[in-house]
Amino acid sequence: MNHTAAELAQYLGARLRGDARATISGVASPERARTTDLIYLASPRHRERAQASAALCLVASPALDVPGKTILEVADPKLGFVKAAALLLKKPSLPVSIHPTAILSPDATLAADVTVGPYVIVEDGVSVGAGTALGAFCFLGRGAAVGENCYLHPRVTLYAGARLGNRVEVHSGAVIGSDGFGYVFGDGRQWKFPQIGTVEIGDDVEVGANTTIDRGSLETTRIQSGVKIDNLVQIAHNVQIGEHSILAAQTGVSGSSRLGKGVVIGGQVGIADHCTLEDGTVAGAQAGIPSGKTIRHGQTVWGTPARPLEKFKRQYAWFARLPELAERIGSLEERNKKEE
Amino acid sequence: MNHTAAELAQYLGARLRGDARATISGVASPERARTTDLIYLASPRHRERAQASAALCLVASPALDVPGKTILEVADPKLGFVKAAALLLKKPSLPVSIHPTAILSPDATLAADVTVGPYVIVEDGVSVGAGTALGAFCFLGRGAAVGENCYLHPRVTLYAGARLGNRVEVHSGAVIGSDGFGYVFGDGRQWKFPQIGTVEIGDDVEVGANTTIDRGSLETTRIQSGVKIDNLVQIAHNVQIGEHSILAAQTGVSGSSRLGKGVVIGGQVGIADHCTLEDGTVAGAQAGIPSGKTIRHGQTVWGTPARPLEKFKRQYAWFARLPELAERIGSLEERNKKEE
Amino acid sequence: MNHTAAELAQYLGARLRGDARATISGVASPERARTTDLIYLASPRHRERAQASAALCLVASPALDVPGKTILEVADPKLGFVKAAALLLKKPSLPVSIHPTAILSPDATLAADVTVGPYVIVEDGVSVGAGTALGAFCFLGRGAAVGENCYLHPRVTLYAGARLGNRVEVHSGAVIGSDGFGYVFGDGRQWKFPQIGTVEIGDDVEVGANTTIDRGSLETTRIQSGVKIDNLVQIAHNVQIGEHSILAAQTGVSGSSRLGKGVVIGGQVGIADHCTLEDGTVAGAQAGIPSGKTIRHGQTVWGTPARPLEKFKRQYAWFARLPELAERIGSLEERNKKEE
Repeated sequence: MNHTAAELAQYLGARLRGDARATISGVASPERARTTDLIYLASPRHRERAQASAALCLVASPALDVPGKTILEVADPKLGFVKAAALLLKKPSLPVSIHPTAILSPDATLAADVTVGPYVIVEDGVSVGAGTALGAFCFLGRGAAVGENCYLHPRVTLYAGARLGNRVEVHSGAVIGSDGFGYVFGDGRQWKFPQIGTVEIGDDVEVGANTTIDRGSLETTRIQSGVKIDNLVQIAHNVQIGEHSILAAQTGVSGSSRLGKGVVIGGQVGIADHCTLEDGTVAGAQAGIPSGKTIRHGQTVWGTPARPLEKFKRQYAWFARLPELAERIGSLEERNKKEE
Repeated sequence: MNHTAAELAQYLGARLRGDARATISGVASPERARTTDLIYLASPRHRERAQASAALCLVASPALDVPGKTILEVADPKLGFVKAAALLLKKPSLPVSIHPTAILSPDATLAADVTVGPYVIVEDGVSVGAGTALGAFCFLGRGAAVGENCYLHPRVTLYAGARLGNRVEVHSGAVIGSDGFGYVFGDGRQWKFPQIGTVEIGDDVEVGANTTIDRGSLETTRIQSGVKIDNLVQIAHNVQIGEHSILAAQTGVSGSSRLGKGVVIGGQVGIADHCTLEDGTVAGAQAGIPSGKTIRHGQTVWGTPARPLEKFKRQYAWFARLPELAERIGSLEERNKKEE
Repeated sequence: MNHTAAELAQYLGARLRGDARATISGVASPERARTTDLIYLASPRHRERAQASAALCLVASPALDVPGKTILEVADPKLGFVKAAALLLKKPSLPVSIHPTAILSPDATLAADVTVGPYVIVEDGVSVGAGTALGAFCFLGRGAAVGENCYLHPRVTLYAGARLGNRVEVHSGAVIGSDGFGYVFGDGRQWKFPQIGTVEIGDDVEVGANTTIDRGSLETTRIQSGVKIDNLVQIAHNVQIGEHSILAAQTGVSGSSRLGKGVVIGGQVGIADHCTLEDGTVAGAQAGIPSGKTIRHGQTVWGTPARPLEKFKRQYAWFARLPELAERIGSLEERNKKEE
């Protein structure tokens, strides 16, 4: 949707330098921008790229000038850019309609303006809120609930009873509400621990492609509002994830672990069962957090088993110098031998 | 299905204390239980929770008493609980029927009471045993075979020729029988090694959501009976996994590796190609087992490259003290210098 | 397709010993071969297996003889075998037809001989080249493009605008073109960085089951020709992968990283954002390459953080001997104490 530079400046709380009536219709990188695309400039290093761009308007910090361009001055240009993008870009939406191949239970409750793609299945007792779009091949099992203005890309599976809040976006292949993984060995076989809890996902959550989120065993797996989950992530039964936390791709969170608010988890991190990551903790890529471990408020950890980043770095620096240390020990021993 | 406490006691071989005629209709956690739900108590730490629960019956060890409740006494209460759950809980089953949108080859053989969900595809030469349910969007490629009383959740893919035993449960998004990954570089390009073997899965196996199990290249990938596989696990071509082994989420097993019986693999473990893990071995989360390695009967390993747990722990303890060791070496050198 | 030994010898540039008119109809392992299957023998260790095989013809190196068999002599028997397999094996192809349940936009352009399986969805502006087969449940979003002679197994998802070259094979459950993962935190919430770029995949690429490849954020994610990607791999936004590179299962490549030509990545490797892996580099299984790191031409790395293999091995050898080193330091200190 088109906006003038003045409108955008007001929306962003930006100081405007240049042509207040300039039209802005989208966002782009400097190299790909058309005249009406908005670009951003966060560092003097990229000033040349911005100057050379066809874009007429940019978001920049007060210290940066790009002659001849209309500038929206904000303290954090990247934040300004993404906020502008949220306004300027609309999701590619299916036409609002129910595709005739969709199989909708008469016992399901769909708001009037829900969009349902081809070959969607909605079972008994499901509810879908206003403005939500269900992509092709989505499966909503018995009693599942999807809030308002959600976007389920093609081929999302909600097991029976899974619940999503409002403005949730789920990417293709994600599976929400599958059985947790728990067995008790006895009488020569594995017995499955009951996996009859459910899963509740808050508002404004994004779930990546082919990510799996298990239902609780006897309790509820809970993803709070604002959480963002990348592709191929595994969330086990009974896990709790606090608001605005972020989990990068291929990370796994084992049963009953709890992540606080604003936690940041890198890629391929493994969090064993019954861990507690307090608010604002950070786990570096590939970190491994052992069973039952607590990471204190705001701490950054790395390595397997994970430890505070600074500590790990010091230890690791000496790891790299191990051959040297071994040699120094050898020299000391040599000297002692000579003395004898 | 409802049972009396007496019936359950007999089924479990439990000693009954309390009301033999009490009705039990399900299982739950203490906090969520209704009066007719069964709970369990395995440790005195949770006695208060059990006491406060609405549940009238619980499975507990002989040493534990909860006044006013009916108690099924067994040596291992958690095992008793999961066995009771197996009796009390029935899978949410689709109504027994063939959905009209299912596309079934006339050359496929389905037992009389198979349940086929909407938009299922069953190709030529497929066989499906009695009591099996195929969820929506399942795809059974040419010549695939599914045994009796299996449950394929929505959106499971069996490539041509993949074979499942009886009572196998496969979660959504799992892919069974995809091509193995093998190439030979020559004449300036990668040539694909033929992936024309197949995959055979025994009885009572569970396969997690979005897990992938490749067919053999020239041989057969084989998962023995009772194996349990979590979500997002990768099983490569020609892998053999022995009875009752357990593989946690995001683990990968590379080509031609063999796991014995009762092997336990933590999450995110990587097992390289041509490894042998003998019966009863355990690999801790994120362990990495290098190509061709053998792990002996009953051994527990951890780390990358994996080594016996006790050894790894000792080594790791010193890793954590590396800065101190380095300092001590420095002091020794300092002293020597002074002596000179 | 059947060939004579003479025809195969000519195709392979092999020297023929034995029956030039022998018929060859397939490939197999020595144990499974029928008389007309081709086997290969690359090492004297396997001579017995070859001798005992029912197969009448084999590919072998000049130094190896198997009396009574027809031999195609080549310098690299495994390469000869896979090249022969490429000729002898044809993919299991769906009958060339458009299944009546496929939903094809009238605005899509399909070549005359495209095969479209049941429940396929092709949206507006899609193009599909000659000889390509789309398996059941494939979803081709608006404006996606698939080249000639591609094979999409059942249940592949292409987001809008994703582009594949010719002879690309994509396995079930793969998702190509999903949104990248990028957020900026501000005003108490995560704002999504725009993910409006696209993804372009060259010729002769293979993509494994349940692998995810994100579109670029503002740019293009680009997989060059001949790249082979295993199952459950994650390729993030803006990543570039050079020709003939190979990525094993469960590896993740983070945003904006660049892999050169002929790069080989083991299983479960994590490559952080903005890394450069130059041509011919190799990363061992589970290696972790930190943000912004460059791996120089032809170098092999291992470990987390990744370092040159030889260096890592030396360091790791001392890691294993840490308890011994600590003891030796203790002895030195002890001796000093006695001297005092």
